[in-house]
Amino acid sequence: MIKFIIEHEDKKSKARAGRLITPHGEIETPIFMPVGTLGAVKGLGSEDLEDIGAQIILGNTYHLFARPGLDIIGKAGGLHNFMQWNKPLLTDSGGYQVFSLKDFRKITEEGAHFQSHVDGSKHWFTPESVVEAQRIIGSDITMPFDECVAFPCEKGEAAGAMHRTHRWLDRAIKSFRANPGKQSLFGIIQGSTYEDLRLESTAFVSNADVDGIAIGGLSVGEPAEQMYQHTEVVANAVRRDKPLYLMGVGTPHNLIESVTRGVDMFDCVMPTRNARNGMVFTSQGRLHYKDGKYKEEVNRPLDPACNCPVCRKYSVAYLRHLFKCGHLTVLRLATLHNLYFYLATMREMRKAILEDRFSEWKMETLAGYDRGVII
Amino acid sequence: MIKFIIEHEDKKSKARAGRLITPHGEIETPIFMPVGTLGAVKGLGSEDLEDIGAQIILGNTYHLFARPGLDIIGKAGGLHNFMQWNKPLLTDSGGYQVFSLKDFRKITEEGAHFQSHVDGSKHWFTPESVVEAQRIIGSDITMPFDECVAFPCEKGEAAGAMHRTHRWLDRAIKSFRANPGKQSLFGIIQGSTYEDLRLESTAFVSNADVDGIAIGGLSVGEPAEQMYQHTEVVANAVRRDKPLYLMGVGTPHNLIESVTRGVDMFDCVMPTRNARNGMVFTSQGRLHYKDGKYKEEVNRPLDPACNCPVCRKYSVAYLRHLFKCGHLTVLRLATLHNLYFYLATMREMRKAILEDRFSEWKMETLAGYDRGVII
Repeated sequence: MIKFIIEHEDKKSKARAGRLITPHGEIETPIFMPVGTLGAVKGLGSEDLEDIGAQIILGNTYHLFARPGLDIIGKAGGLHNFMQWNKPLLTDSGGYQVFSLKDFRKITEEGAHFQSHVDGSKHWFTPESVVEAQRIIGSDITMPFDECVAFPCEKGEAAGAMHRTHRWLDRAIKSFRANPGKQSLFGIIQGSTYEDLRLESTAFVSNADVDGIAIGGLSVGEPAEQMYQHTEVVANAVRRDKPLYLMGVGTPHNLIESVTRGVDMFDCVMPTRNARNGMVFTSQGRLHYKDGKYKEEVNRPLDPACNCPVCRKYSVAYLRHLFKCGHLTVLRLATLHNLYFYLATMREMRKAILEDRFSEWKMETLAGYDRGVII
Repeated sequence: MIKFIIEHEDKKSKARAGRLITPHGEIETPIFMPVGTLGAVKGLGSEDLEDIGAQIILGNTYHLFARPGLDIIGKAGGLHNFMQWNKPLLTDSGGYQVFSLKDFRKITEEGAHFQSHVDGSKHWFTPESVVEAQRIIGSDITMPFDECVAFPCEKGEAAGAMHRTHRWLDRAIKSFRANPGKQSLFGIIQGSTYEDLRLESTAFVSNADVDGIAIGGLSVGEPAEQMYQHTEVVANAVRRDKPLYLMGVGTPHNLIESVTRGVDMFDCVMPTRNARNGMVFTSQGRLHYKDGKYKEEVNRPLDPACNCPVCRKYSVAYLRHLFKCGHLTVLRLATLHNLYFYLATMREMRKAILEDRFSEWKMETLAGYDRGVII
């Protein structure tokens, strides 16, 4: 079970600093969780994640079910052992992934039939089986199976999916609480971009027997302003004694704006995926290190203000050279920088909250992003 | 300049332990040099190479000339700075690469015209320009531009290429010595698989004003026995006060047999390339970690006898899982293991030579390789 302690609340916003105590250690919130879908962050070992200060990482139930399979993870004694990560672990339920299969799944009230994207084999997920899968995986924080809708979505469809998600949450809670262990279960708020649905879902999940509350179905293509608006609607109505997790978000700017509105936890593939595609986040905004204009920048790191193992050592010209050669090493180096930058931003933000200077820190930090990289 | 100190010679073979003192530190021989063609070993940063005990690594003049270009490396103050590697560095001349271009190069007595494999641009390498290129790169040990032949090769062609290589070596030495600095220059023995040519080339290079002697043109497709035979012919005839470097070799078994015959230095892409293709070297021979039979080996490392950061931590089932998913992390982990295994094998071999138990160590170690991995 987790325990959530709120340490300090900002006076001018809903930002707060807290601690989440899990069976595998404490997490300082607000927190960003690197994504290791298949049991590893691409290009990194778990020792690298420890080195750059990751406190909790994410796995994905659907992906781990497909490969290597729950039998292998069970045999290893859970995902912590299998991937040799001894800190907290959260697993997404796979709802989002199953619903992304589109032509290869069929939803009923009981659950979802689907075909594996790996080998086409047929499977069956229910709220109960997804609880059981995560019991085998052994994650500290588990997520319930939910019905996700695309953006944009008709209101009737959004309401239907949301109500089913609520019924499935009740079944997940029943199954989860029937066999209590060390794990925790969050609830997921849905409702697409309809304010009244978001409020209804917030009330439902607030009253449910869950250990934390997640906002699902945002960051799926809607404009950032709409994402902020719905995050605010939820955060203003949700019970505040549990951690609030905004799923799949986002840029450093998105994280800061969402913490302002009351969010405690985040995950996103953006820092890792963008790193591999030639883009990093810096204190002066985005930097496309693959650009020809960095060819001769042999003395400048990705971000002179960054203290990561890559910026302390390598030049942007070196990273650009390796990227142009299609060299594996750069994927790792850029990933290390981006994750370090995200984690450091969260640490600084937390410190600013604790020291009652969050709004000043936010203004300065966002001004830096807006300034843009000048070379 | 380098200085070579022979510390101990084996009584029953030509194996020896020594020290090579370079401007960037000392190297304990016999040594294996990981290959970082473009200024990085694939999947690793230079900090990783230090962590696993690499003492010297290899870069390639032709590849670095093509990308990022000598102007960029010069601007960075040399390859050591550019790639942030502060230990010894050897650069191959690019002779082998230029001659591999086949339809895209033309050889004259003056040098080689060729088209870059990257952008088709036309260039011109001479013995003098290759010395100059490596001066800009700043490697501790430089190699002369040589004419490489394929295997098998007609004797007339092999003799012609060898004689040209000798004439080019004289020009390289003249150019190199005209402007003395901290770097060293090796000579390369050619002669394909003809014993009399090998002897002629050995005599020529032994009498040349070079700091070390390399055997080129082996490990190019000939049977291992033929490679050992020609290595022996050279090692028995060569002057023994200079380090002997067998280029492009080989498996752990090859290294042990070649040290027995008198070789001090090696480089090869085998440990890194094979790692990425799903195969590792272990104390019990080769292990194809991608095989289905390792699917459930959640408690067994790649090599229980190995003390590398990967074997101390991860299971072969985990590596297999990541390989089956096409996951970047496994390329790094398998590379770390293979390079560590090579470097540890060289360290153990050196210790055995120093302790007068090389032949016993060799017998036991090769018996282990032959035993094969049993799971």
